[in-house]
Amino acid sequence: MAEQVKLFGVWGSPFVRRVEIALKMKGVEYEFIEEDLTNKSPLLLKYNPVHKKIPVLLHNGKPICESVVIIEYIDETWKGTPILPADPYDRAMARFWAKFIDEKCLPALWKACWSKDEEQEKAMEEACELLKTLEAQLKGNKFFGGDNIGLVDIVANFIGFWVEVLLEATGSTDLLTDEKFPMLCKWKHAYVNCPVIKENLPPKEKLLAFFRARQQPTSGPKYE
Amino acid sequence: MAEQVKLFGVWGSPFVRRVEIALKMKGVEYEFIEEDLTNKSPLLLKYNPVHKKIPVLLHNGKPICESVVIIEYIDETWKGTPILPADPYDRAMARFWAKFIDEKCLPALWKACWSKDEEQEKAMEEACELLKTLEAQLKGNKFFGGDNIGLVDIVANFIGFWVEVLLEATGSTDLLTDEKFPMLCKWKHAYVNCPVIKENLPPKEKLLAFFRARQQPTSGPKYE
Repeated sequence: MAEQVKLFGVWGSPFVRRVEIALKMKGVEYEFIEEDLTNKSPLLLKYNPVHKKIPVLLHNGKPICESVVIIEYIDETWKGTPILPADPYDRAMARFWAKFIDEKCLPALWKACWSKDEEQEKAMEEACELLKTLEAQLKGNKFFGGDNIGLVDIVANFIGFWVEVLLEATGSTDLLTDEKFPMLCKWKHAYVNCPVIKENLPPKEKLLAFFRARQQPTSGPKYE
Repeated sequence: MAEQVKLFGVWGSPFVRRVEIALKMKGVEYEFIEEDLTNKSPLLLKYNPVHKKIPVLLHNGKPICESVVIIEYIDETWKGTPILPADPYDRAMARFWAKFIDEKCLPALWKACWSKDEEQEKAMEEACELLKTLEAQLKGNKFFGGDNIGLVDIVANFIGFWVEVLLEATGSTDLLTDEKFPMLCKWKHAYVNCPVIKENLPPKEKLLAFFRARQQPTSGPKYE
């Protein structure tokens, strides 16, 4: 039986793009199914009844949900470029930082992008503190994974690409400046120019127009 | 060089006990360092500068933080009883449900245990909905891991032991009743009587006294 791989997602979601990057790194062919988040398909609800969210990866009829869980599944299922390191300690560190980005950085950055005035100032400060911690983690490496893109880099795609677009859409000042975050800026430049990432980012102008049309001062659009 | 394993924690923490269960399953000898969470040790702050929380596992001088990250590290580092399944899809499912318990069930249950009156009623309802989803996941198996304790069972220790003690301490009605959750109740019974779990739970009366002394109606004591 030919292998069947389907990905349920939306083009502008950083979480869905994470999975696409992982699939491309492994050279896995897949069918992309674009969802309408205002009217989720019966298949999406069937395959992710718990969270009813994208992304969902369907591999030979079996669904996997949650982007980081999916990435680890991809890494364990297909040979090719490794996504997590081989050494258990390095794997633990990758998982720790992926969790830090998802649980700490992303909520803070999302708030910093969509809030206004004093609330935004406070949110920006909080986000900067977290980014400083992340910056220190690069330790002079090109990527969080060392010389090559790894789990943490994939998970950090929101920081490497989405944040700038979001801040531009909401008319805010960029966060990732060379003065404040020299290492993260260098990382970001190498990141968006790395072929597997570059080919798996949404078109900037389209994303900008999407966010501009959906400006909701305190929350922003839903993504999952 | 002899292997050096240290665990920084507190006796009553479900997150620390998870790590102890994993270490015991693997037969790893370790030194337990009891922390005072009101006056965290310089070593804890040194080894977990990001979150400043327990548990921290120190293996030959290298720190690992976050209980689920630590459990996966233990599973990958030491042979012996496996904690995660071997099959990539089963591993993904274990990670998905561990995440569901940590991100959905635990905050809801904590709230249900420590709130009062109407707020508690609402929190209890929400917690019950989540537990129903978890109950369905047992599918007639003895443990979430099948015939043997696995990652999801370890992560669910709060549901299997702490919730009952907490509700007793706060004078609330128990949540896990046979009528509402027959499968989860069966699981709980098998769980707390499974030797590796039984030997790694805090003494019930001591935990009860601890919670009774720290009743803070809306939040409860800090645990990390």
